[in-house]
Amino acid sequence: MKKIVFVGAGNVANSLAQAVAKLPDMQIVQVYSRSIEAAQLLASKIDCGICYVNSFADINPDADIYFFAIKDDVLPKVIRKVQTNSEALHLHTAGSHGLDIFGTDKPHCGVLYPFQTFTKTRTLDFNDIPLFVEAKSNEDKESIMQIAKMLSMQVFEFNAENRKYLHLAGVYANNFANAMFIEAQNILKHTDLPSSVLLPLIREMVNKLSVMPALQAQTGPAARHDTHIIERQVQLIDSDLQKQIYQLISDQIIQWTSQPT
Amino acid sequence: MKKIVFVGAGNVANSLAQAVAKLPDMQIVQVYSRSIEAAQLLASKIDCGICYVNSFADINPDADIYFFAIKDDVLPKVIRKVQTNSEALHLHTAGSHGLDIFGTDKPHCGVLYPFQTFTKTRTLDFNDIPLFVEAKSNEDKESIMQIAKMLSMQVFEFNAENRKYLHLAGVYANNFANAMFIEAQNILKHTDLPSSVLLPLIREMVNKLSVMPALQAQTGPAARHDTHIIERQVQLIDSDLQKQIYQLISDQIIQWTSQPT
Repeated sequence: MKKIVFVGAGNVANSLAQAVAKLPDMQIVQVYSRSIEAAQLLASKIDCGICYVNSFADINPDADIYFFAIKDDVLPKVIRKVQTNSEALHLHTAGSHGLDIFGTDKPHCGVLYPFQTFTKTRTLDFNDIPLFVEAKSNEDKESIMQIAKMLSMQVFEFNAENRKYLHLAGVYANNFANAMFIEAQNILKHTDLPSSVLLPLIREMVNKLSVMPALQAQTGPAARHDTHIIERQVQLIDSDLQKQIYQLISDQIIQWTSQPT
Repeated sequence: MKKIVFVGAGNVANSLAQAVAKLPDMQIVQVYSRSIEAAQLLASKIDCGICYVNSFADINPDADIYFFAIKDDVLPKVIRKVQTNSEALHLHTAGSHGLDIFGTDKPHCGVLYPFQTFTKTRTLDFNDIPLFVEAKSNEDKESIMQIAKMLSMQVFEFNAENRKYLHLAGVYANNFANAMFIEAQNILKHTDLPSSVLLPLIREMVNKLSVMPALQAQTGPAARHDTHIIERQVQLIDSDLQKQIYQLISDQIIQWTSQPT
């Protein structure tokens, strides 16, 4: 039975710890969070009772695996402060950090990056989440791959090139697409329509993504090169920033749909 | 039994005709398309056998309802050319046109606009599609509302204000969000990863839309005001146009997430 310590009790830690807790031969023996309430709540979800702490000094130094699932900006500092043992395997879950943030006191280390957007209130099936794995040594990579493959059907090896571009693709596919939904919901405030009228359209757009490239699915005024409607719509927009965004994305769509594919 | 003629056999006509064919007291007696093959194919799908034509002169002038489900840019011209009877109800399905494109020879007229993206190869459940209804007279509106409510659970009355903004919201929610997916898929070409790795992330983003406003669901470097990562990512992008789009959308997200909600 491997003894596991979870450092972090936020969105990622909540989903991941619940998935890890179900694996055979794994026992989460401790949850750390800066917030004792968050640590306690997560501990209760994974049936590890009173095993929660909120002080670095109280972290169990004798575990086999340490998961660091905390925000990217505080991750390097926290990893430095947590005392473990040099035999243990250390993993972080951040897409934006590599292996260099693990010091010489943590020679066995790696990354297990779940490519997903997490919310504490939503329980996701880890099986469907693409996991990206990186490690310093082949031996450690094998151990991490073994864990990853028990957690998910989609496990990939990470490298520096993948890391950069995967991150950027995620920003477009998730953060920027969501920003388009924010603006669509803002626009609907001009009417008395509920924002739920957008959902069937959005769901069908996403369904199409599984059966054809996004470029092939592109429709709308810009894809039809209908500059008349484009001009009329730009005039409807209140803010200068959004006018520019509307115009540039339309220019890009016109460019994409003019090229032979 | 109402006799119905469908003018058009494209993406919208295909979905709509199949839904209308299932309604009680409605019989599609003819399908017109410029392309005789398209007309024949749709006729065969709705069990109306040899009732397809490809000449305006052959369109049955004695029907009760005419559906004009064709591309926005040719719609006014086609409506003018089709001879019907002045008692019939005339409907078009375009979001970008009003009632003014129906001439005095077609006094009973209205719009039945399905707010959805249609593909011939995909059969959609009309029940879930928001339908927007507009008509010149109250009497005609009642008739159209009755048909619309048999087709869908989500029926709304349209007006000029709704029309403009609904259209613009659809461009953001569908066309522009899809453009973000095109760029995400382009970026992934720098790696050997399949574009399917994006799907779980995209699906979960959309699932969140049903339970919280998009603004509340916004995450990523710009939402965290992480200018360091934003700069690093802009440098990764090849084209100047995409660099601008990345920067402007990030500026907008920073602005949105700085305001008290």
